[in-house]
Amino acid sequence: MSPNTYPSVNAERLWQRHMDMAKIGGTPGGGVHRLALTSEDIEAHVLLVQWAEARGFSVALDPMGNMFLRREGSDPSLPPVSSGSHTDTQPNGGRFDGITGVLTAFEALETINEAGIETRYPLEVAIWNNEEGARFTPACMGSAAYVGFTDLDDMLSRKDQQDTTMGTCVEELAKALPQAQPRDLGTPIAFFIESHIEQGVKLETSGNVIGAVTGMQGYRRFEIEVIGEDAHSGTTPRSRRKDAFVAATDMTRAMREVLWDDEDEMRYTIGRFDVLPGGVSVVPGQVNFYVDLRYHDKATLDRLADEIPEICKSHADPCEMRIVDTPSVDPMVFPEDVVTSIEAAAERHGYGHERMYSYAGHDARHVARICPAGMVFIPCWKGISHNEAERAEPEHVAAAAQVISDILIDRAAA
Amino acid sequence: MSPNTYPSVNAERLWQRHMDMAKIGGTPGGGVHRLALTSEDIEAHVLLVQWAEARGFSVALDPMGNMFLRREGSDPSLPPVSSGSHTDTQPNGGRFDGITGVLTAFEALETINEAGIETRYPLEVAIWNNEEGARFTPACMGSAAYVGFTDLDDMLSRKDQQDTTMGTCVEELAKALPQAQPRDLGTPIAFFIESHIEQGVKLETSGNVIGAVTGMQGYRRFEIEVIGEDAHSGTTPRSRRKDAFVAATDMTRAMREVLWDDEDEMRYTIGRFDVLPGGVSVVPGQVNFYVDLRYHDKATLDRLADEIPEICKSHADPCEMRIVDTPSVDPMVFPEDVVTSIEAAAERHGYGHERMYSYAGHDARHVARICPAGMVFIPCWKGISHNEAERAEPEHVAAAAQVISDILIDRAAA
Repeated sequence: MSPNTYPSVNAERLWQRHMDMAKIGGTPGGGVHRLALTSEDIEAHVLLVQWAEARGFSVALDPMGNMFLRREGSDPSLPPVSSGSHTDTQPNGGRFDGITGVLTAFEALETINEAGIETRYPLEVAIWNNEEGARFTPACMGSAAYVGFTDLDDMLSRKDQQDTTMGTCVEELAKALPQAQPRDLGTPIAFFIESHIEQGVKLETSGNVIGAVTGMQGYRRFEIEVIGEDAHSGTTPRSRRKDAFVAATDMTRAMREVLWDDEDEMRYTIGRFDVLPGGVSVVPGQVNFYVDLRYHDKATLDRLADEIPEICKSHADPCEMRIVDTPSVDPMVFPEDVVTSIEAAAERHGYGHERMYSYAGHDARHVARICPAGMVFIPCWKGISHNEAERAEPEHVAAAAQVISDILIDRAAA
Repeated sequence: MSPNTYPSVNAERLWQRHMDMAKIGGTPGGGVHRLALTSEDIEAHVLLVQWAEARGFSVALDPMGNMFLRREGSDPSLPPVSSGSHTDTQPNGGRFDGITGVLTAFEALETINEAGIETRYPLEVAIWNNEEGARFTPACMGSAAYVGFTDLDDMLSRKDQQDTTMGTCVEELAKALPQAQPRDLGTPIAFFIESHIEQGVKLETSGNVIGAVTGMQGYRRFEIEVIGEDAHSGTTPRSRRKDAFVAATDMTRAMREVLWDDEDEMRYTIGRFDVLPGGVSVVPGQVNFYVDLRYHDKATLDRLADEIPEICKSHADPCEMRIVDTPSVDPMVFPEDVVTSIEAAAERHGYGHERMYSYAGHDARHVARICPAGMVFIPCWKGISHNEAERAEPEHVAAAAQVISDILIDRAAA
């Protein structure tokens, strides 16, 4: 296919689809609150399927709740060339994180379909379940289970704060989509590309529109339970308390001493910290909290993360503690030919581009374990993400869809 | 009435009533989870009314949700001689805190009734609403509003974490008790005495059964909101974060430096600390927490509490903060003649007794603003309270009821 015959995406339609999606779980503050497989998230899946069926695309669901919208190719024996991301958001998250990757992929399929292009490989939009990890841990659950990085039964047994299991939620999703065909986990994928807002300020600062992502930070995660003893705040002297709040905050502070680097490259976050039972006048007998640690260099990441259990233990007294070192993810790099294909597509359409690193984890990280994969970043206002104020520009979203469309055409024709 | 004619309470009946009450909101761990005016707490009120009606006692409700069970006296012009406490518990609280004061009062009225004793003053059991302050703040809400210490409309507008108002809950209670007569807030009370588990280890250590309470710690409470900015934990460097968790924990630690005294007399507690939005991979944009500070000496309490806003402000950067200094309560003393009447009743029945101080706040503190009042403590296993493991012995509960019964007879006959 010659450069000038790549069909143009429909920027207006793509933006409208973003606005339609933002209504599902939309917040008064202009964001989206659509936790994984809540009724809102299931509604988002159903809407995507309605759009897909209007195009004659088929739908499949795997046992982990990942969804696939498919446009057939000419050779039914070939695995799909795929793009996508996720529909779930953080609590009071934004209108672009995840859904932009899904909608740009869908726009690419619609564009290719309207242009009447026959591909050899089937094309798919993948919607990975529970990328955010906000309702159920761990994050990127759907893509990780798909590629065999985590165990399906373990993931389906995970519970949210209301003790609902992921398994129950996946059943709800399946019930809402009776037309979906079953798909086995690990079913081969020929190629995967994901577009996403940058969630940083590099593109905004440089003025470039397309980031060709070269690799991704690794992370380590710990779940820590500090177990003390509930006690009356008025009657119990300090010497008789087993105050889980005091012990847990001492732990988080001690970790800070070790993890806060002068270069400001290490990402150390306590985002969830549950103090129980939570009465104003009760010395808290338990704190459950999570450590999220990210870095680009595996050796340093592991060296520091391996210190965390000992740091926490040394501040537990007089409480007890349990620490779970949850599955870690190593820093990774995307194949060079995928990065260059992104640059070529950007160049073709006159989009300013640069190579960059991803500080966030994304589903593409896991999918890259089973096929060539890559990521396309677009600018994001002030780098703000996981926040109602998250914002991307219509022309940047369209640029991502254009790059994805071009690349899918090339990969699926080959 | 001569010492040997005070009727004996029925220890077995009293214990059985405790066990019946413990079923309402009973937890698998052997405690009670019965937050103020939840369906469980309303059920506890209804059960008390059933018991009262079986005795021919009447029931009244005031606009704050306080309930009064009444045995009439011979002079209808006189205000009631009263005893009681509360039915609500802390989250996963115990089987004695509060309810023992209600049931010993009820046992006293039953005992006096069975003995056919006519009193001049009416006798009442008072059930003060929302003593714990666990579902709605502030604590001791019912008794405080009754005596005019806090404003009724303000209290009724308070919301729980599901945004249900106290006003709605009081309406639910009234609906469940259509037979209740209306009672105005501030309706005079002639005398009030409250029994309670000690929630400390003084009696357990000395082997005494009855504590004649001389006074009560004062407290200061602060509600603090730390407002930062939600951000992605992987992409946002430390220098760009407004991490409310970091700021809030720095505040709690800095307060500790000032408030932790060598004598271990100051009670400084962070029991509720809500980290929002609460995603593992979201830099938290908000923390709401409460400081509970208690001490026996008003000057020292105020001097240290007055430092708290400045300490918090100095650790807020780069977040914003708001601090609310909620209504404080001064340390107080009970009238000497009430204390000696408790000692006399204990002596009469051969119960070991001692004078002691209350480190916890109780409704008697507020009621003491409008009439002579006092408190009776009994031992509590290991001092453990606000905990499922809370335990009191049947013979100690009975001793409290006996002292209350004796004192009500004396005060109501006078």
